[in-house]
Amino acid sequence: MKVEGPLYERLARELEGQIAAGTFKEGSRLPSLRDASRIHKASLSTVIEAYRLLESRSVIEARPQSGYYVKFKAPSLCLEADSEPERADPTSVSVDELSMELFRDTQDPDFAKFGAAAPDPELLPTAKLDRILASISREGGFGVDTSVTPEGCEVLRVRIARRAYGSGCSIKPDEVIVTAGCSEAMALALLTVCEPGDLVAIESPTYFGILLILEALRLRALEIPSNPGSGLSLDALEFALEHHPVKALVAMSNFANPLGSCMSDDSKRALVALLEKKGVPLVENDIYGELYFGERRPSVAKSYDESGGVILCSSFSKDISPGYRIGWVAPGRYATDVLKRKMALSSGTSVLAQLTIARYLEGGGYDAHLRTIRRAYARKVASMSRAIEKSFPEGTRIAEPSGGYVLWVRLPAGVDSMRVYAEAVKSRITIAPGYIFSPSHKHRDYIRLSAAVWSERTEKDLARLGRVVYGIMGAEPRR
Amino acid sequence: MKVEGPLYERLARELEGQIAAGTFKEGSRLPSLRDASRIHKASLSTVIEAYRLLESRSVIEARPQSGYYVKFKAPSLCLEADSEPERADPTSVSVDELSMELFRDTQDPDFAKFGAAAPDPELLPTAKLDRILASISREGGFGVDTSVTPEGCEVLRVRIARRAYGSGCSIKPDEVIVTAGCSEAMALALLTVCEPGDLVAIESPTYFGILLILEALRLRALEIPSNPGSGLSLDALEFALEHHPVKALVAMSNFANPLGSCMSDDSKRALVALLEKKGVPLVENDIYGELYFGERRPSVAKSYDESGGVILCSSFSKDISPGYRIGWVAPGRYATDVLKRKMALSSGTSVLAQLTIARYLEGGGYDAHLRTIRRAYARKVASMSRAIEKSFPEGTRIAEPSGGYVLWVRLPAGVDSMRVYAEAVKSRITIAPGYIFSPSHKHRDYIRLSAAVWSERTEKDLARLGRVVYGIMGAEPRR
Repeated sequence: MKVEGPLYERLARELEGQIAAGTFKEGSRLPSLRDASRIHKASLSTVIEAYRLLESRSVIEARPQSGYYVKFKAPSLCLEADSEPERADPTSVSVDELSMELFRDTQDPDFAKFGAAAPDPELLPTAKLDRILASISREGGFGVDTSVTPEGCEVLRVRIARRAYGSGCSIKPDEVIVTAGCSEAMALALLTVCEPGDLVAIESPTYFGILLILEALRLRALEIPSNPGSGLSLDALEFALEHHPVKALVAMSNFANPLGSCMSDDSKRALVALLEKKGVPLVENDIYGELYFGERRPSVAKSYDESGGVILCSSFSKDISPGYRIGWVAPGRYATDVLKRKMALSSGTSVLAQLTIARYLEGGGYDAHLRTIRRAYARKVASMSRAIEKSFPEGTRIAEPSGGYVLWVRLPAGVDSMRVYAEAVKSRITIAPGYIFSPSHKHRDYIRLSAAVWSERTEKDLARLGRVVYGIMGAEPRR
Repeated sequence: MKVEGPLYERLARELEGQIAAGTFKEGSRLPSLRDASRIHKASLSTVIEAYRLLESRSVIEARPQSGYYVKFKAPSLCLEADSEPERADPTSVSVDELSMELFRDTQDPDFAKFGAAAPDPELLPTAKLDRILASISREGGFGVDTSVTPEGCEVLRVRIARRAYGSGCSIKPDEVIVTAGCSEAMALALLTVCEPGDLVAIESPTYFGILLILEALRLRALEIPSNPGSGLSLDALEFALEHHPVKALVAMSNFANPLGSCMSDDSKRALVALLEKKGVPLVENDIYGELYFGERRPSVAKSYDESGGVILCSSFSKDISPGYRIGWVAPGRYATDVLKRKMALSSGTSVLAQLTIARYLEGGGYDAHLRTIRRAYARKVASMSRAIEKSFPEGTRIAEPSGGYVLWVRLPAGVDSMRVYAEAVKSRITIAPGYIFSPSHKHRDYIRLSAAVWSERTEKDLARLGRVVYGIMGAEPRR
């Protein structure tokens, strides 16, 4: 309460702030005079004065024999404009502020959300999860409260091991630790294999979430070039390992975000052999592995790992539910240390969410669901690529992903992605500018677009985005 | 697969390992020959040989037109003895291994669990949570997947702010970040205010979870003495701040674990003033704050904070549900940085768990529930204290907690808590030995007992524990 003025005015301002912030919503009761006096360590008379002041300003009202209530406000005539979120000048925004904005955009229903890589809610098995929830609630939830362990529920870990096994990767249930999504899996892995200040090799471009983790854990990044077709450059990596004290590599061998690239089996084998020779652990993020467009699920680098140096991270956030926040890590020879850190940092993962996902996986419909969404995302990616070709200026290039649902788009020469970001936001469209996929802000002439939101409705939004790019170039759209 | 022998033998051993680990349970189908060949990168004939070998060993069986299945084992005649968990010699166990064991003990139904500080499952509003879950599942869960944000759901943050406000602490909803329990809240706070290698002042004795966090984040601990009655010694703290480069203080001002102590309002005010003067942030853990035995909820140190230097952490794990893993942090002036780290480390908290807790808080029965469990825990603590007095040797001393449900017990002179731990485990009783409440293994002559499990049934277990202590002393129990 560091404000000036007499005590009761300060208190009134404090209360008004709480009401404005939503602690006390319209129509809800304020603390009694006695409670408020205790809470604010103010005399009863000060509280009475403050309440009267707020009453005189029509912020609150007294109801006889009941207390003080927050008054309902008259509806604003220009609510639309008032509620528009303020946005800072994006060119002055740092990577992490921008990443936070991208996270948050997913909340605003008015935006065309090509920016975040969230899955299409229509392609999640929500109804089935609801039925499972209903049945868990009928059985009584005592299990939820008696089975918190740092490693997670056994029933789920068995299912995860079996899935991993099916993708050519021999992991046992007791080698799996359940995490709050793939982010926590990777954070725990890096916290385990690195000391603060260590150098971590990353793909360039890379998923910006990795950069946030590195920053939070005080790790430094070394960018290894990656290509849309074959993924991480092994030549560059080998060179880097010879010349820099790299302590870990973070990579997405399957359908890397943002490139959509997939390493071949041979490359994966060579990658693991190279890292093993150098004694450098691999933190492998396979979050998109199941969303392949080809005939078969690609292998994970982990399946070539004989020394336990590969830490495989994944989650069910792309195919079952991002909101449940269920991921996992198979930490190889680092299992004990990763588990210790999981226990330290969050004790365990929400059991309710674990049990629901485990039952879903037990239910038997997962494979059929995956087949459906693979086809759907492949179609979305193809349609959106065609639409970009049609509505963006000449000189635009699109990486052809072999799985997942993001598109890495090179803008025509001279078009800065941050400008596209800023102008697009004005048109209520979000995109992810290339800047944030590299700690040194490479890839300025790229944007990442999510095809997950692709539909007939968003086709128009994409056309608008194309016009934004034309506008920045000072050119007229093709007809 | 680093094993010796011909290819098919290695493969058979690998498969047997997977079966033993539970990836393939009894009666479940193994991968088809073709799938296994792909998964193991082995020829079809090698796979056939391996499967035949396992068949000859009665591990699996072929079912015509269906495939290979894991055979059911004959029930073991001495299942009880076989399934007993192996325990390492506790005197050679490190603090974190022991802490992990204490976590895990809560899983074994055969043990009398005085060791972990888990709430009594009977005192959680499980049935009500189940009803809320059922209603969420009926409404359809799309909200779960469209409202993941790093800071958490607004509906829950409003409720948290309102509760905090009621305890004399003016926090606005947008100053609250939802976390995976109080552990994540504290870990995020320390990750924000400290650099690796920094010195953090902690209470001594302290909750061992703090020590795990410090270790995971590479922080060093400085122990400040704390007393059962008044809590943290401000004199010692002031001295420590003058002589050591302390970067943060972690403290439980209300019902500290394990002491059960509660600082007075004056002490809290003085503590905050002292830290403010020195520019040292306070990470305040108020997880037991609602479980007071007195007339009124004690204030939090945060309520005396004018500069935003107090980071208040709490959770609903003690009073609503540990399994939901819902906690929160009000980071004061560190809000932006804590949020950034939350986003980096786990993207967000399970939305389903958040919504369920939010609805529970909205439902209106929370206060009545708290009144019930406060009385219940006060009774348990009182009864268990009396039982300890009765059944433990002379010279035993019990701290008198003013809230929460743990008892800090000093053993008679010369009795080592690690020995009590080891002997108690043999009697299927867990306790928390004093060692693990201090990084320098002070408090060896103390044990912490949880009164949450107190009941007529566990009264006998406590009597047995008393006999264990007598036995270590080579004495006969009093009659």
